[in-house]
Amino acid sequence: MRIFDIISKKRHGEKLSDEEIKFFVDGYTCGDVPDYQAAALCMAICCRGMDEEEVSALTYHMMNSGDTVDLSALPCTADKHSTGGVGDLTSLVIAPTLATLGVNIAKMSGRGLGHTGGTIDKLESIPGFCTALTGEQFMKQVRDIGVAIIGQTADLAPADKKLYALRDVTATVESLPLIASSIMSKKLAAGAETIVLDVKYGSGAFMKTPEDAVNLADAMVKIGRDMGRRMGALVTSMEFPLGRKIGNTLEVIEAVEILRGELEGDAKTVCVNLAANILSLAKNIPMDEAFDAVNEAINSGRAYEKFLTWIAAQGGDVSYIKENRLPVGKFTREVVSANDGYVSGMDTERVGLASCMLGAGRVTKDDEPDLSAGLVLHINPGEKITAGQSIATLYTSDEGKLDGAEKMLLSSLKLSDAPVEDMPTLIYKVIR
Amino acid sequence: MRIFDIISKKRHGEKLSDEEIKFFVDGYTCGDVPDYQAAALCMAICCRGMDEEEVSALTYHMMNSGDTVDLSALPCTADKHSTGGVGDLTSLVIAPTLATLGVNIAKMSGRGLGHTGGTIDKLESIPGFCTALTGEQFMKQVRDIGVAIIGQTADLAPADKKLYALRDVTATVESLPLIASSIMSKKLAAGAETIVLDVKYGSGAFMKTPEDAVNLADAMVKIGRDMGRRMGALVTSMEFPLGRKIGNTLEVIEAVEILRGELEGDAKTVCVNLAANILSLAKNIPMDEAFDAVNEAINSGRAYEKFLTWIAAQGGDVSYIKENRLPVGKFTREVVSANDGYVSGMDTERVGLASCMLGAGRVTKDDEPDLSAGLVLHINPGEKITAGQSIATLYTSDEGKLDGAEKMLLSSLKLSDAPVEDMPTLIYKVIR
Repeated sequence: MRIFDIISKKRHGEKLSDEEIKFFVDGYTCGDVPDYQAAALCMAICCRGMDEEEVSALTYHMMNSGDTVDLSALPCTADKHSTGGVGDLTSLVIAPTLATLGVNIAKMSGRGLGHTGGTIDKLESIPGFCTALTGEQFMKQVRDIGVAIIGQTADLAPADKKLYALRDVTATVESLPLIASSIMSKKLAAGAETIVLDVKYGSGAFMKTPEDAVNLADAMVKIGRDMGRRMGALVTSMEFPLGRKIGNTLEVIEAVEILRGELEGDAKTVCVNLAANILSLAKNIPMDEAFDAVNEAINSGRAYEKFLTWIAAQGGDVSYIKENRLPVGKFTREVVSANDGYVSGMDTERVGLASCMLGAGRVTKDDEPDLSAGLVLHINPGEKITAGQSIATLYTSDEGKLDGAEKMLLSSLKLSDAPVEDMPTLIYKVIR
Repeated sequence: MRIFDIISKKRHGEKLSDEEIKFFVDGYTCGDVPDYQAAALCMAICCRGMDEEEVSALTYHMMNSGDTVDLSALPCTADKHSTGGVGDLTSLVIAPTLATLGVNIAKMSGRGLGHTGGTIDKLESIPGFCTALTGEQFMKQVRDIGVAIIGQTADLAPADKKLYALRDVTATVESLPLIASSIMSKKLAAGAETIVLDVKYGSGAFMKTPEDAVNLADAMVKIGRDMGRRMGALVTSMEFPLGRKIGNTLEVIEAVEILRGELEGDAKTVCVNLAANILSLAKNIPMDEAFDAVNEAINSGRAYEKFLTWIAAQGGDVSYIKENRLPVGKFTREVVSANDGYVSGMDTERVGLASCMLGAGRVTKDDEPDLSAGLVLHINPGEKITAGQSIATLYTSDEGKLDGAEKMLLSSLKLSDAPVEDMPTLIYKVIR
């Protein structure tokens, strides 16, 4: 078998066999297949596509290119994956909520890159919180309290890691077969029995239209199901930031507000829907029962108690949370609208970039983010605002960053003269 | 400007600007653009195509990536390019013939690789012949006798050289825009005013169908014309080897036979047609006059005399030619047909490979070919043959190579029970 013939076959729109896909994945992982041949094949896949069987095979062989986590000793394990967004704090709320309901959340999460945040950075903004547990500590914690979220320790899907870095510089990221197999190879390797995906669409997401997001969600649900997992997916809007607070500490604060029942809104709605879908799949119960259980877990305060238990279990100092004194950036600025109008949209990517510019994010992998930086939005989709009204407060440890971030944030705001009719649907579709 | 955006644009089927194509060619030549990004772009070009303007820009910038030969001191310069074939001795005949007719042939040629031969190897099979002249010697010889053919000394189109090597291992060779720009960048850099292309179709050629060959020829003629050259192209069959003799010395012998007026057949027909087209374009005279002049040059013996003058001028010992004692491989074998039938076809690539296996060719660039090796075919397209009849004689310096070459040659022969109706057209189309 030669990689040349595999590239040529895909170039001419032919279907690759399981053996051919395995030959490519294994060869690329060990370095026998050089970057330039892998780049040519990725571009051919972008242009010619792959059918379901090919995508399943690609996912399967990428999943098996490194370690796979064995969670079979734990009952009722579940995981959630978001395709990435701005102000997306859902993992922080869902994990403890489900842990109170008999669902085990043994989760590996990532760090933020570019305009999107990462759960690990958010958790590390809690003083003392440790995201690096050993495998044994991790399993013990889940067995004891039903929840643990750690940074990726195992070498999950190294083929995907290498391939993603290559795709990132060869304009071959946007491709349903490549995105679906990339996400699912890691998620499947992480071992949970139930997986619910939150596939975002809109200005802050990979997928710009809800239709594309539905196609991606369908493909991923199919892959997971073929490999024996309980699968579900929500397609949700990233046309606006999900939470009103963006930044690492700020998102922990908003998650706490939701868990305490102090805050309603889009972020809570998505959290409740994700949690209810996971619960329904994991426990095989009807959706209405699942919704009731999730709402009860939050309203009763049990979810918040579990959150505190979890944070403490991983070394976090819960007094900062209980006493509402998680540190936020000492330099602040009110960003004021120059015009009257209705908030018809926000370029969510720009909102994320503004938060990045305040220090909250990473431009390259080696940057160390300012966990106390970020911004709090004071406006909601569709709302009427007037010139001079504050639309957001910026927070940073570096005063020099305020001007640039303010400009970036103002450029994200879209105002219209008339009330907005077709606002984006928050939960566009639920796939079960 | 970023190469990423250029790849992405082509990936989405958009047209690249002149500046973008220059940025890619210059960046790839100097190493700023790595192989993996160039591979992704080549695959995107294969899948999405390029329009005429893009192909012209790609050709122009590849031509300017290195040296360009200035032949403007010489009047009426002409060059010919063949897309490569088996038994293709036409340069050896055309060059001296045109030199007798006031057309200056100042030509750089290549070496053979794979199943196709190269003019430089053929010329070096004449004892003493030197293919490495200085620029000054080269120009002086053309001025003195109207013809010189040397190996590529100048650094012509290095971008193409680098890109071709990459395309060869990434399944991106077959692509009209990439093939046309590759060939034309080198031909245009070589400086001749008139260029006539011999675009081959069939089992021994790049282009398998005459239609594909016509499209390629049209594209190349257009590129050259846009850059102010006098352009023509013939689309000719490579469904059979062109000459009856294949190998380096053997093709020189066949060229001599044609120049002496001792041999008629397909090879001579293509030589005369190419020469007449070049003459007509270079001198701006009607085709019938051009044909008469070419035939007269050969029939009068002047072309043969010029051939001897040329060979001597480059140091070749013409006594070998005059006395018919150019050395051919001392081990020979008659290859005999096992069956009766009509010669319906030959897999020309396999005939070339048989010659290669006898030692005549190069498998890799560093091989040193056995110039005396090759084979002489005794059959013609469509001819009826009987079992036991010799179809070819093999020649080699290494007896051990005969068995393998015999098998390969026999596998190239296609016999049919009934006379063959639709034989491939030797000269399928003339583009002017």
